[in-house]
Amino acid sequence: MEQVSTNHSHGGTQGVYTHQSTATGTPMTFSVFVPAHAPGAKLPVLWYLSGLTCTHANVTEKGEFRAACAEHGIIFVAPDTSPRGDSVPDDEGYDFGKGAGFYVNATQAPWASHFHMRDYIEQELPALIGAHFPADMARQGITGHSMGGHGALTIALRNPGRFQSTSAFSPIVSPLACPWGEKALGGYLGADKAAWREYDACALIEDGARLPDLLVDQGEADNFLGDQLKTHLLVEACAKAAIPASIRMQPGYDHSYYFISSFMAEHIGWHAARLKG
Amino acid sequence: MEQVSTNHSHGGTQGVYTHQSTATGTPMTFSVFVPAHAPGAKLPVLWYLSGLTCTHANVTEKGEFRAACAEHGIIFVAPDTSPRGDSVPDDEGYDFGKGAGFYVNATQAPWASHFHMRDYIEQELPALIGAHFPADMARQGITGHSMGGHGALTIALRNPGRFQSTSAFSPIVSPLACPWGEKALGGYLGADKAAWREYDACALIEDGARLPDLLVDQGEADNFLGDQLKTHLLVEACAKAAIPASIRMQPGYDHSYYFISSFMAEHIGWHAARLKG
Repeated sequence: MEQVSTNHSHGGTQGVYTHQSTATGTPMTFSVFVPAHAPGAKLPVLWYLSGLTCTHANVTEKGEFRAACAEHGIIFVAPDTSPRGDSVPDDEGYDFGKGAGFYVNATQAPWASHFHMRDYIEQELPALIGAHFPADMARQGITGHSMGGHGALTIALRNPGRFQSTSAFSPIVSPLACPWGEKALGGYLGADKAAWREYDACALIEDGARLPDLLVDQGEADNFLGDQLKTHLLVEACAKAAIPASIRMQPGYDHSYYFISSFMAEHIGWHAARLKG
Repeated sequence: MEQVSTNHSHGGTQGVYTHQSTATGTPMTFSVFVPAHAPGAKLPVLWYLSGLTCTHANVTEKGEFRAACAEHGIIFVAPDTSPRGDSVPDDEGYDFGKGAGFYVNATQAPWASHFHMRDYIEQELPALIGAHFPADMARQGITGHSMGGHGALTIALRNPGRFQSTSAFSPIVSPLACPWGEKALGGYLGADKAAWREYDACALIEDGARLPDLLVDQGEADNFLGDQLKTHLLVEACAKAAIPASIRMQPGYDHSYYFISSFMAEHIGWHAARLKG
């Protein structure tokens, strides 16, 4: 692991790091904020998975998470959204290929050669974080935005007990039921939609996966709400499965970081209450 | 004035606007955050002047000011740092010409044709803000970063009584005494350094200008501290003039927005206490 940069911020250290990933076969870059802490202390970890077109940098610059992470003593990890580099296949659209890994292990050519973001986020990067940072890996929370909200929900649902807290900002709740999902999962996983269900939060819940509770914020003025995000499907799935979910429609807010940053401190407080250990 | 964009954020509206400036003879773009407020209410205004290479966008995206402005009910205005456009002369350096207006009225060719950032910030933009936003122009504060900290200090010192509160992040405290200032003021104002004194915070204080009080934060790990910023000159000038100045050296912090954002909420609280009316 190499350090790309560090900046002192809000009393802690905002770092950017790169390493050669075995999961993706490429270099991968991520950011980590470590608040001030006592020598030898281990802090809980909050994962933030980003949305389409993003790298680690978007939330790191615009997310307004550091003050709350410093207040609560939480490490904040922001991975990239796909493998990168000249050897990595891409698509002309912003919603498939680079910047659009959808947190899946691709099975279809040419994507299967590098697009193993599920293994990267579920296995490889947690091991790296546990080894190199003062992280208490027994206390983890996960959140994300849009495609990253989809990632947070599906990863938490597939790994019961790993995360003490799960939240999301304007998540894609059902790739099976929206154009972004049709294109991406069709491309990465092939036409057999049975293979998509483990990457669909609503389908996972329907198939029996559970979360202890859940916090979701969704802007009512979000351009993607009707066609892509379909928050109501998650409301219905949680209700049917008796998952205590606080899914809040926020009047006036759009899909941007101006929305995310407005509720970031509240999400971090919500995670902090569940990560006290 | 045209609206470029608005985003709902932290309960208020983050807008970006453009207008044809008579001061610079060019279109000028700026951002304004207006917090939620009662109908008909007038809110105090905090000006934020940006540093070299910046536009309105840097602080708007990375400044982490909206939560505190929403909490205290303060309008936040972020202007550009120079005229822009193909007709505007420029310099190859990042520290002169476009993105580097230094908040002066240039007197030297070819700069005098457009570089009237002093008139723009002191006269034209306040009139526009007063006319188009729910702003109480009797309650104004001013702050800024680096070149913009220089702007905030010098504008407040030259306009006694206009600002109830003045602060700065890592300001250039004496253009007369640093390479950035030598290049920029020499270029905009010519070789006669007597003409520079009204654009030098330390010289203005030496010449009799005063502030009721002052808050400054400066990172100790700032690469520009020794050669360009020279905070100690401001400490000495304020001490000699008996200006009650809280000039704080902050260990570990650099010159970036990771530093600014760490102390932004505290600065806004400091301004709020003086802008209550």
